[in-house]
Amino acid sequence: MIKLGIFGSGKVGGSLGAWAAAKGDSVAFTAKHEASAERAARAAGHRARALPLAELARECDLLLLTAPFAEIIPSLAPFSADLRGKILVDVSNPITPDHRALTMGFSTSGAEEIARRFPESQVVKAFNATFAEIYAARRTEIHGQKITVLAAGDHEPAKTQIIDLIRRLGFEPIDAGPLANARYLEPLSLLNIQLGRVLGLGTDIAFTLLRKT
Amino acid sequence: MIKLGIFGSGKVGGSLGAWAAAKGDSVAFTAKHEASAERAARAAGHRARALPLAELARECDLLLLTAPFAEIIPSLAPFSADLRGKILVDVSNPITPDHRALTMGFSTSGAEEIARRFPESQVVKAFNATFAEIYAARRTEIHGQKITVLAAGDHEPAKTQIIDLIRRLGFEPIDAGPLANARYLEPLSLLNIQLGRVLGLGTDIAFTLLRKT
Repeated sequence: MIKLGIFGSGKVGGSLGAWAAAKGDSVAFTAKHEASAERAARAAGHRARALPLAELARECDLLLLTAPFAEIIPSLAPFSADLRGKILVDVSNPITPDHRALTMGFSTSGAEEIARRFPESQVVKAFNATFAEIYAARRTEIHGQKITVLAAGDHEPAKTQIIDLIRRLGFEPIDAGPLANARYLEPLSLLNIQLGRVLGLGTDIAFTLLRKT
Repeated sequence: MIKLGIFGSGKVGGSLGAWAAAKGDSVAFTAKHEASAERAARAAGHRARALPLAELARECDLLLLTAPFAEIIPSLAPFSADLRGKILVDVSNPITPDHRALTMGFSTSGAEEIARRFPESQVVKAFNATFAEIYAARRTEIHGQKITVLAAGDHEPAKTQIIDLIRRLGFEPIDAGPLANARYLEPLSLLNIQLGRVLGLGTDIAFTLLRKT
């Protein structure tokens, strides 16, 4: 029995599959183009092979779905009987071709609603994704790692002022682009709340952006 | 001219306002209950005072909106003329009273659509918010700080298997709760893409969750 099936043999699927194979898993790749599945399998070494999707769906217990989101449901639909009880790991994201927006589930944000109502003001989204407890403790780092605070907005001078404020408080400011990116900053806050308050990690947590340079 | 107006004097507004005052800013607080604005102002020291919203809107150049989202637009609406040209920093999040979901803009996620179509399979959302380049380089940390990979799903044994895989690859796994939390993991990926590919930070970046303990 093959352990790990990779549907989609691009950079994400190819890399994760080869890595898992290097860790000892047996891995099978499938892709829209057979040649790319075979290339991924060769790159992943002797514990990996290429298989048609029908066989992958039948033989693997665990499928990593790394193909573009739009291909996943139509491609897997004919094999739903084989997928019963199997684990499907959705690695995809439903994004537009320019990779700038989600294609479903998202239509606006609180910050954009405020900007729509006050069009002559300069709305910046910031400070919304870190726990109040961090602010109350004036904690700007955890284990020596700076906490990043993100700012999104359409008015550059206004955003620059907020970025200065973030820096003066001691955080690492990150320019998160236009105000529409509040659609990503607001969910980041919800994720933080889920982890800290719902799933029990507590409020001494914070997301930060690690950067190599 | 007062520099910083804080609308909402709860833990977020009170903490950020006091902190900015300690850094030398003059700060004014307003709140639904005058007493709480006065309490916040006292706690913030001599550079801070409490003001009615009308005066705050008139006198401050920069307003931090830390009140609950639902109160912001109705409260500020009468003062929109005074807010022209001002900076409004939206620190709020449009969330449900139990803090578990966003109240607008979000209705589903790719992972939930897959689960709906394959109800007898066990869908886990994972690996979707880190750049392929990180996987390709088998990089599990940046500057000595482990990268976290989040997994959300409704089937605990399936999620446990994925968490084991994340750990075996060398990342720090985080259980991100039910599959509906893919609504927060998918935007996290978009934020990552915005920062790395659109705003120019490159692909040697990764979000990680810092934890005190």
